[in-house]
Amino acid sequence: MQQSKFKLADWTARNKSSVMERMLTALSDPDLISFALGLPASDFFPSEEFARCFSRILLKNKRSLQYQPPLKSLKSHIVNLMKTRGLETSEENIFLTTGAQQGANLLVHLLLDFNGDVILEEKTYTGFQQVLKPFAPRIFVIPSSSKDGFDIDALVKILESGVRPSFFYTVCDGHHPLSLNLSIAKRQKLVELARTFKFPIIEDDPYGFLSYDENQFPPLIAFDSEFVFYVGTFSKILAPGLRTGWMIIPEYLTAQLGSLKEASDINTGTLNQHLINEYFDSENFDLHLAKLKEEYKKRRNSLNDALNQNFINRAQWQNPSNGLFTWLELPPEFDTEKILEHSLKTRKVAFIPGHLFNVSDSRIGSNCLRLNFTNNCPDTIFEGIHKIAKVIEEVV
Amino acid sequence: MQQSKFKLADWTARNKSSVMERMLTALSDPDLISFALGLPASDFFPSEEFARCFSRILLKNKRSLQYQPPLKSLKSHIVNLMKTRGLETSEENIFLTTGAQQGANLLVHLLLDFNGDVILEEKTYTGFQQVLKPFAPRIFVIPSSSKDGFDIDALVKILESGVRPSFFYTVCDGHHPLSLNLSIAKRQKLVELARTFKFPIIEDDPYGFLSYDENQFPPLIAFDSEFVFYVGTFSKILAPGLRTGWMIIPEYLTAQLGSLKEASDINTGTLNQHLINEYFDSENFDLHLAKLKEEYKKRRNSLNDALNQNFINRAQWQNPSNGLFTWLELPPEFDTEKILEHSLKTRKVAFIPGHLFNVSDSRIGSNCLRLNFTNNCPDTIFEGIHKIAKVIEEVV
Repeated sequence: MQQSKFKLADWTARNKSSVMERMLTALSDPDLISFALGLPASDFFPSEEFARCFSRILLKNKRSLQYQPPLKSLKSHIVNLMKTRGLETSEENIFLTTGAQQGANLLVHLLLDFNGDVILEEKTYTGFQQVLKPFAPRIFVIPSSSKDGFDIDALVKILESGVRPSFFYTVCDGHHPLSLNLSIAKRQKLVELARTFKFPIIEDDPYGFLSYDENQFPPLIAFDSEFVFYVGTFSKILAPGLRTGWMIIPEYLTAQLGSLKEASDINTGTLNQHLINEYFDSENFDLHLAKLKEEYKKRRNSLNDALNQNFINRAQWQNPSNGLFTWLELPPEFDTEKILEHSLKTRKVAFIPGHLFNVSDSRIGSNCLRLNFTNNCPDTIFEGIHKIAKVIEEVV
Repeated sequence: MQQSKFKLADWTARNKSSVMERMLTALSDPDLISFALGLPASDFFPSEEFARCFSRILLKNKRSLQYQPPLKSLKSHIVNLMKTRGLETSEENIFLTTGAQQGANLLVHLLLDFNGDVILEEKTYTGFQQVLKPFAPRIFVIPSSSKDGFDIDALVKILESGVRPSFFYTVCDGHHPLSLNLSIAKRQKLVELARTFKFPIIEDDPYGFLSYDENQFPPLIAFDSEFVFYVGTFSKILAPGLRTGWMIIPEYLTAQLGSLKEASDINTGTLNQHLINEYFDSENFDLHLAKLKEEYKKRRNSLNDALNQNFINRAQWQNPSNGLFTWLELPPEFDTEKILEHSLKTRKVAFIPGHLFNVSDSRIGSNCLRLNFTNNCPDTIFEGIHKIAKVIEEVV
């Protein structure tokens, strides 16, 4: 990399280009079958409805293009939406964001000091890890299990040793990247720990609304709205190109978060706020979400069938209840980074090797693959999984 | 303010609600005549053209709603747009942002360490000051003059004393808040200083395209593209509700800034990128900008006439060549914070007192008013200025 003639911030020296980034550039090949990214299916974006909504908004209200305070009626739609998850909240607790990523980013800036302490699961959404880099935090890592989520006893042990983290971050429904739902007992225990040891929880919930099975649990914030910050998004249930999400926060923190938000991008794009508001007012969101879940469930099941055809007795996985991904575990001797390299070269199929989600430098999960099932139609899913199986046979 | 049961980041304790914030809440009164905020005129947003563009995009390209890399064709439109400012650049140097505020925010994160050194003009855009707060920087302040901008000798003195700032931030065309254009000699001298003392310059340019007079100078980046980072935006020339802007940066910094951008909000809203691209492809931006400048020039001249009617021999001002504001200077004994208080109560007219832009706690400029001229029609401008003149007579 070219050296600048002036000094960059210290963290940039530690910010090396990752395997993940190098791999992402390979994804631009249009002939590639990709199970790699967390893309929703473009086919199901309600684009015609959006076109109608835009025409109505733009012809009646030029102020939808102006700087504006957060749209109250949109907050009210979000309050109703959260009721479907078993949460009672109010407009005063809703804080609009430029997508869930910004929500998590603002919360980290609210809570974390430079060189502060955080506790993370070994496998954590990489976009969240990126938020932390400039803070150079001291990170305490607890093991993640693909069977039942993070090791809560390890968490207790760290807390009992005296560590007081700035926050604990997790994805309870459709865990990112392990794709499992946290048990009700662990949800209760986690919230209890937060109260006892007085640390806040950042609950990132991109996938809670994308549920394919019965027996869904309420989000963590339904157990405690004082210690839990909830981060939601329209990216996965409407479209990511709108970059609109929300947080649910204690009202007394609105001013501090507002100051951070203003410093980040002034306000959440007003036109998209109006669009989503108009969509909820005049189109049928419930029907849209029901259809979306039906289609995604089909694709999830296709991936499950394809894995059964190609990997039965050769790998382990659970058919996930929520989200966009299936987590596939090969026997420990397999190296999915090597498999990916061959797969890209010889069969043009992509996925993400499991250890790339690690917070530490460990190779834990290097026998695992994260497979997206929403962005390919069933036929492509079968074709792609068959190809991965072939690559594995060839590599070993 | 309610106390949280967990610790917030240290900077939040220093983040008191400001006079500015308290004043902004007063602005929600619909009967108020406001010269306060930096709002473009809603009337001139090309909303019908946007509605047409949205229909075309949404019906032909569902991927405009998907996560996507920055749109190359939009970058190419920006390259052409910059040519009208006398700058030759290329797509590889364009970095899309969620508005200029995000551009400045990302650059600060790239350049500034916690507790790092920065040099600022006494009067600096408050939104930029907000970005700095969590970094708790050591700030060296140089005087701002409403006659000819910042005191470059004071800057030299600080640099010669050995201070090496992480950056110098300024608005050269339509200075925020002083509303003047930096002389060509000072532009050259500033860039020379950056090269000699090896510090980067953040050139925030929201108003460069809104020019009302001849004799415009090229932006700083036209003098040096290695030490100058340029921050541009569509907010003032198309519409702020789109939250889309750009930076011009050395290409070798794209990966580092990309990592910060991803941590902030993944990517700049793709639908709005496609909208602006389609607008440049198929509608007449040049004509739009020419008309906008014509209308804004009329409003600027109305404000100038109103000031001549009410403040001749009682105050000083220059009719600005760029931007959204006129800076009005009353005799030193006047206190515009007191005047504002009465103005809001008795006449329902708002403006921003000059000292609220100060980086230090000083009262420098407390005899000044920043007056926006774009967001009111000429009649309202005359009415509002007449009312302010009356309030001043009553208060003194």
